[in-house]
Amino acid sequence: MKLYELSLSEGRTVSPFVWRVRFCLAHKGLDPERVPISYHDKDQLAFSGQDRVPVLVDGDTVVTDSWKIACYLEEAYPDAPSLFGSDIARGMGLAFNRWCDHVLLNSLFLMCTPGTYDVTQKEDQPYFAQSRFEWTGKTIDEIRAMEAQAIDSHKKALEPLRQTLAEQPFISGADPAFSDYCVMGGLMWAKTTYRGSLLDDNDPVEVWRQKMLDLFDGLGRGTPGLN
Amino acid sequence: MKLYELSLSEGRTVSPFVWRVRFCLAHKGLDPERVPISYHDKDQLAFSGQDRVPVLVDGDTVVTDSWKIACYLEEAYPDAPSLFGSDIARGMGLAFNRWCDHVLLNSLFLMCTPGTYDVTQKEDQPYFAQSRFEWTGKTIDEIRAMEAQAIDSHKKALEPLRQTLAEQPFISGADPAFSDYCVMGGLMWAKTTYRGSLLDDNDPVEVWRQKMLDLFDGLGRGTPGLN
Repeated sequence: MKLYELSLSEGRTVSPFVWRVRFCLAHKGLDPERVPISYHDKDQLAFSGQDRVPVLVDGDTVVTDSWKIACYLEEAYPDAPSLFGSDIARGMGLAFNRWCDHVLLNSLFLMCTPGTYDVTQKEDQPYFAQSRFEWTGKTIDEIRAMEAQAIDSHKKALEPLRQTLAEQPFISGADPAFSDYCVMGGLMWAKTTYRGSLLDDNDPVEVWRQKMLDLFDGLGRGTPGLN
Repeated sequence: MKLYELSLSEGRTVSPFVWRVRFCLAHKGLDPERVPISYHDKDQLAFSGQDRVPVLVDGDTVVTDSWKIACYLEEAYPDAPSLFGSDIARGMGLAFNRWCDHVLLNSLFLMCTPGTYDVTQKEDQPYFAQSRFEWTGKTIDEIRAMEAQAIDSHKKALEPLRQTLAEQPFISGADPAFSDYCVMGGLMWAKTTYRGSLLDDNDPVEVWRQKMLDLFDGLGRGTPGLN
């Protein structure tokens, strides 16, 4: 089994989608070979019919898209701990996944983009800056100047989870599962790229995040970035 | 079993929290006696130790708060169809519930408040307008003037669900369950109070809403308001 992932300076994995999958794989007790890709050698992904990470290769099976990978793992490894636990939770999982992609990651985008630029290999920085300019109409420095607004938007986006985590240890209840990994993927993007302090120590989301960093022998905590 | 609910003109139930519980009860195959309350006779709820609907009375048990009622129903009636299907889904259900209350209902607030005023009994309208003025600093007419902005905010809040429902029939997957009722509670507030058309006919949320209106012998469709 192989997981293709974007790897920046110091072997840093920043993609929230890759992190989501890494936590799901660990939950299933799977530890694939990790294949690092850079922005300039994305043609290594051509075999998958697209150019985005993560790509999971399991024997003859190639799966792209973090949600599809989670569903694949659940079906292919039914005897390993479940990511969902029921069809209803899998249905809700898609809604959760879409909320993470549309709301949470949008709220992280302005905050994490300058730091992602900083940890991108020098030769890829012009490509990175240009692609973000095409998406947003803003330079990296202009995005950097929006930091306060970005943090405010991110803290607001987390409010429903803050209320949830004030009442129970994990988003999935007593123990972590897919929805926790989905959110943690986003916060790993922040950990690996953002240099400031995101959340107050007594914020229930921060208390939960610290627990998430320790899971699976410190899978998250051990990666470069602020814990 | 009795369900205390706020009832406005034409016996109209507008509370998204009451509707959430009515759908959960129907899912469990339960049909309690409904006890209508008006804004001016909230002291009928004093026995519950608070003054908000819904209140469920099941024999000697009194349960307030729509989330606690859903959890109570799941525990007290384990042989009836499950609202969650797994502990993981119940955990996610709380996050979903908090998202509905914090984001979805906030997005509906400006849109539904003028219509809620209109269907409030004449003698309660001054109380209603005053309480909303205390919350928002705005008169009913000032809120009414914000309609376009309110619709825009509501459509944006629904985006993650729109993407989900483009891929599967219900938020909970193949069949409706708690998360569907949680969202539908909010949209029933809109149906019973808002006179305009909320969503385009081909919006996946609208396609889903029409199916939800038909559930349980037209529980939603049969109530006064635009279908």
